[in-house]
This record gives sequence, C-alpha cells and structure tokens, in this order.
Amino acid sequence: MTAETIAYSDAGVTLKGFLAYDDKLKGKRPGVLVMPEAFGLGKNAKARAQRLAELGYVALGGDPFGDGREFTDLQEAIKVAGALMADPAKFRARARAGIDKLASLPQVDSSRLAAIGYCMGGTFALELARDGAPLRGVVSFHGGLQTQRPAVAGQVKAKILVCHGSDDPLIPIAQVTGFIDEMTKARADWEMISYGNTVHSFTNPDADGTMMPGIKFNAQSDARSWLAMKNFFEEIFAK
Amino acid sequence: MTAETIAYSDAGVTLKGFLAYDDKLKGKRPGVLVMPEAFGLGKNAKARAQRLAELGYVALGGDPFGDGREFTDLQEAIKVAGALMADPAKFRARARAGIDKLASLPQVDSSRLAAIGYCMGGTFALELARDGAPLRGVVSFHGGLQTQRPAVAGQVKAKILVCHGSDDPLIPIAQVTGFIDEMTKARADWEMISYGNTVHSFTNPDADGTMMPGIKFNAQSDARSWLAMKNFFEEIFAK
Repeated sequence: MTAETIAYSDAGVTLKGFLAYDDKLKGKRPGVLVMPEAFGLGKNAKARAQRLAELGYVALGGDPFGDGREFTDLQEAIKVAGALMADPAKFRARARAGIDKLASLPQVDSSRLAAIGYCMGGTFALELARDGAPLRGVVSFHGGLQTQRPAVAGQVKAKILVCHGSDDPLIPIAQVTGFIDEMTKARADWEMISYGNTVHSFTNPDADGTMMPGIKFNAQSDARSWLAMKNFFEEIFAK
Repeated sequence: MTAETIAYSDAGVTLKGFLAYDDKLKGKRPGVLVMPEAFGLGKNAKARAQRLAELGYVALGGDPFGDGREFTDLQEAIKVAGALMADPAKFRARARAGIDKLASLPQVDSSRLAAIGYCMGGTFALELARDGAPLRGVVSFHGGLQTQRPAVAGQVKAKILVCHGSDDPLIPIAQVTGFIDEMTKARADWEMISYGNTVHSFTNPDADGTMMPGIKFNAQSDARSWLAMKNFFEEIFAK
C-alpha cells in the first residue's frame, strides 16, 4: 500500500494532499477525492483515504487551506474555513484542483471519479456536484447542506448520497428540507440517509462531546454510513 | 426451497399466509414477517418472501384480511384496509398473529425476528415496533408513517429502517418530519433513507403509473432499498 504526500496547487496556493492506493493492483482504478473537516487535512481523512485504498480505489485526501495547515481550535478553524467558503467560486475551485490532480494520475480511470467529505468536506463534495463536475458520485458525511449557488436543473452529473445525523445541531431540519427541495427541483439523482440519535461529526472517533455535546462520534452510524458509501461506489463505478 | 400456504388465525379470522424457506439449511434461522400492500397478500410480497428465503431466512408472507383475500380495485382496497387500520389495537394484533406464527415454527430462531412491509405493510411493521413487539428490527418500504398511538419513550425494542420515496404523494414531508420527531422523542433506534425522484410503490414492478402517477416502480430505488434491508438484517441478526 502506498501512502504519501502529494503536492498540487490552486490559485497560487500550494496544496499538500495525501495519496493512498494499492500499488499491487494493475490497471486504472476509480479515483476518490476525500475532503476533510474544517480542521484541515488530518489523520481522520487520511485514515479514510487509506481505507478506500484497501477497497481498491485511488484516494486523494485534499488539502483545503494550503501547506497542509491544520487547526485544533474550533474558532480558528471556523474563521479560516468561513473565509474560504465565503466565495463559492473559490471554494469550488479548491475542490476542483483536487479532482484535476486525481484525474491526472496514471493509476486513475478519469472516467470514474467521486468525491466524499466530512463536515466542511461534505459541503465541498456537494458543491462539486452543484458545479456539474464530471463525477460519478459524491458522498457527504455530516456536511453542511446549504449553498449560495443552488443546483441548476439538469446540470448535476454526479449521483448524490447524503449521510446526515438527525440530531445534528449544525444542520437543522430546515436545511435538510431546503436541500431536498433544491435537489428535487434540479432533478438530481440523490439519496439522503438520516440516522437517529446521531449528531455532528458522527464518523470522527475523536469527537467525544467535550468540544460541544452536538459534536460526537456514533459507532453504529459511522459503520452504517461507510457501508452505504461502499455500496454506492459499487453502483456508480460499475462499468 | 419450500414455499407453501400456511394457516394461522387472529380474532376468529382464518389467515392464509405464505411460508418460504430453504429446506436444505439445518438449524434455526432468523424469521421475517412480510406484510403486503393494501391489495392483500399477492405475488409481490410472496416474491419478496422467496427472496428472503434465498438469503437464508424463514419468511412468512402475512395475510392482512383473512382467507387470503386480494383486491385489484384501489378504492375497494382502501375501504377494507381503512376499516382494519381504524382500530390500532386490532391492526397491531393482526400483525402480531403473524409474528407469533413465525416464532412457533421449528425452523425459526424466535430470538431473531423481524418484520418488513410494503405500503400498508410498512405501517404494520412500524406499528409492531411502536407496540414494543420482541423484534430485532423492522423495515418499511413506502409505508405510511402516521399513527394513532405514537411510540412511547424507551418502549421500542426493534431497530427501525424506513425506506421512503421523497416524492411520495401519499406520505408528505410533514408526515416524515412528524415521524422523525416521534421516534426521536421515543429514543428509538431509527434510520430513514429518502430516495429522490421516487414516488409511492417504488418496489412494485407492476406499478406503472397508470393507477395514479404517484404510484410507480423505480428500479434504482428498489435495488438500493433491498440492499439496505439486506445489510440491516446482517447487522441486527448478528449473534
């Protein structure tokens, strides 16, 4: 298994991604971009990239902020992520840079690409779908569902899977119903799984509720959503 | 594979169920009750029971109306089903009779039971969960989510999976949010999958939209929801 830092760039910013793939496999494989939480590309997103590599995919952990910057302080993360998200064109371009890098790799079948993400990373994935990026699918795990640029009818190419914690205090029900309305009007191919008894960051084993009670790991919802993603990939990557 | 009519009863009514299981398998297996649409126990629910038998489960297609009565006219079905559903105690007892029959069978591990259902059958399954029936899980496919007797906190034993067509005209969004509210307050273990571009009866290959446009098969949502159920069963039936 290969796991290494890989440099790419967007708008003059050097991005330090994390590439993982099984070097024993031959031929071109589907490529999956993994966008992290607002804390930056850290160990959780990297671990997911490695698990995707074990499934036979080429996975690229995307660097949202440049130079591999990570934050431990929630307020600082919100500030930096907020600045990035304020301009939807720049935000989308940051994710597109990761997709372009992935598509350029010799191991990757560029006709079979997907993006997944966690929290802010989920929003990255959904923004790629809204932007009409040439992806087979996107998966959002506890990602924000709002957008400044709603999807346009007939323009979404990616199938969409949203994995949502029903008690997520950062994603209230009005945001959920707004998303459903947006994607229905856009005639996107979408599916949303709502997990009961589940709050924000439910896939993150380090989220123990101390940062805030509404940010907490849920082993069952984590396992279920990973399996849902796995099945989704088998569907969308079928030739 | 064995597939046969099996008689049982509820409140003096003779019910004609449909039992399917793999007779080559040894030992006790999980048992799954399959409750049909309001048209009665017909070929679709029977076919699902047979597919469950192929997965290694003992499946009982339940007879909702007695004597295996089936209807082809929608208004007649609504009338008979409506009369049955009007009394929640009787409605629940009708499903309980199926569970009791299933639990009594020598092939069935009575500690590993589940109920699934389609349309009205989905409501049967959910009512069993609300009633605190001793089930590992229930799955509703395009089932009505309303109830006269909301679940009581701490009383729901079954894990719940709801597979819902987002454009189902018979199950409006207010019913969906009401269900989420009910199950959250009841602290039930629940999960809901909403499928975009999907209306009522999406699992029924005979639903071609001629009865009404909002009653129509959707091959992708059918396949996805069946797979979700399969994975759910692997989780809940694990020893």
